[in-house]
Amino acid sequence: MKIISTPLEMQHAALAMKRGGRRIGFVPTMGFLHEGHLSLVKIARHHADVVVLSLFVNPTQFGPGEDLGRYPRDFERDRKLSEAAGVDVLFAPETAAMYAKDASVAVVEENLSRGLCGASRPTHFRGVVTVVSKLFNLCLPDVAVFGEKDAQQIRVIRRLVRDLNFPVEIISGPTIREPDGLAMSSRNVNLSPAERKQALCLRRALDRAEVLQRSGERDAARIRASMVEAVAMEPLATIDYIEIVDDETLEPVARTDRPTLVALAVKFSKTRLIDNAVLKPGT
Amino acid sequence: MKIISTPLEMQHAALAMKRGGRRIGFVPTMGFLHEGHLSLVKIARHHADVVVLSLFVNPTQFGPGEDLGRYPRDFERDRKLSEAAGVDVLFAPETAAMYAKDASVAVVEENLSRGLCGASRPTHFRGVVTVVSKLFNLCLPDVAVFGEKDAQQIRVIRRLVRDLNFPVEIISGPTIREPDGLAMSSRNVNLSPAERKQALCLRRALDRAEVLQRSGERDAARIRASMVEAVAMEPLATIDYIEIVDDETLEPVARTDRPTLVALAVKFSKTRLIDNAVLKPGT
Repeated sequence: MKIISTPLEMQHAALAMKRGGRRIGFVPTMGFLHEGHLSLVKIARHHADVVVLSLFVNPTQFGPGEDLGRYPRDFERDRKLSEAAGVDVLFAPETAAMYAKDASVAVVEENLSRGLCGASRPTHFRGVVTVVSKLFNLCLPDVAVFGEKDAQQIRVIRRLVRDLNFPVEIISGPTIREPDGLAMSSRNVNLSPAERKQALCLRRALDRAEVLQRSGERDAARIRASMVEAVAMEPLATIDYIEIVDDETLEPVARTDRPTLVALAVKFSKTRLIDNAVLKPGT
Repeated sequence: MKIISTPLEMQHAALAMKRGGRRIGFVPTMGFLHEGHLSLVKIARHHADVVVLSLFVNPTQFGPGEDLGRYPRDFERDRKLSEAAGVDVLFAPETAAMYAKDASVAVVEENLSRGLCGASRPTHFRGVVTVVSKLFNLCLPDVAVFGEKDAQQIRVIRRLVRDLNFPVEIISGPTIREPDGLAMSSRNVNLSPAERKQALCLRRALDRAEVLQRSGERDAARIRASMVEAVAMEPLATIDYIEIVDDETLEPVARTDRPTLVALAVKFSKTRLIDNAVLKPGT
């Protein structure tokens, strides 16, 4: 596995691979890898000749007062996990090399990114689509793989690729969960034991939505109320949002008889967790 | 010469050229080609194996009330001129194929694009950097050539490439002028005979700046006053702006003892013309 730490070296390596006719698969991460990330590497490997994984805790997608400083980092651990997973190129740039002091260009998405996480984190997706654009231009992937746990993010990224015509195919990988159902996240390590236990309420709320949908319930307000109840049972949990939206437009819906995204964000002290499920009308 | 009219076909052709190891040179234009554009084709040819020229009157870089509807168009003429100039691929997409109805992603530059033309045309550079990003992703150039007549634009594009890490080298070509000194522009055709004559005041104002600079004058306000006078002599001319700014930051300067950009925009009824010169301290 090759380790690259400067943007220019990454771009030169990617250009050489392209010229050699090799398909590049790309998995962008903020590091502190878990099974979720590694499952994306497997998908990338399946669709490409070379797999590039980036490790970059992107400061511009964190708002003031968010957990940029507390975001877990362990390069040595990530290096070993990447190598074992069969990553070919590990791209781990420094922040100063990624952003000039007088950087003045950004990419913005002004529709899908407004609600859900975008409502609580108003500059988050600007940071995400900007850094993803930069990483695409540096790693030159034919295919890039993102996790479905970040439901809004993958929809925003698909829109980015469509609207700016990036020559990149976007593939999503299913959310990987702990045995008890908690969605894997690098942030889980910041939970206290009591918070870790109560964090199951996210999955439980989604279970409720799925059970109601299967039983024929289509009223979004009633489904939402049941989810709110499931989270409210846990004293350490604070609801950031619980939303039921159209799976394509991300607009709130009154009824769940078209494909519907059920998404929630819950805070445990300073740790904010997200999870989601898609309800299909036939289910 | 191959003519391509759909974005996807353009991208596939560009990918095939890249995989074949050919260097792509790119000249983006809004059509109604003149010697200025053709000089950029020559530069592109010098730096690449294949030259792609795009013809696209990009609606998003025109503000309300600007001359989008009056912008001159003549595909057949452009086709012949491109072929004669040795263009390999002419990319002429339809607006509907370039912008989805629900397009929601844009690229923004928030420093260099604020003053000069950006002050009179507040959404112009957002449109420019967005469409240039799209065209880069569709034509996949190794090198792209822009004219120095659009002085602010080329500086904004260089910033775009730096900040989003596009794998593209930007080269500029000098302004090409009519025998009497008027900078070539597709818009010149919209001038009445009287306006065409008076349009020489742009070049005359720049001449005054250069003469003053050579004579040792370094006071920007005095240079500017002389330029204003040259334009004000012409009754059909309305000054949009005359500015003396740092060549790198585009911030207004009080003295011209570092490389300085002198730029102006002048309106003749609905036709807005621009021109510029760079003053070097040694001259």
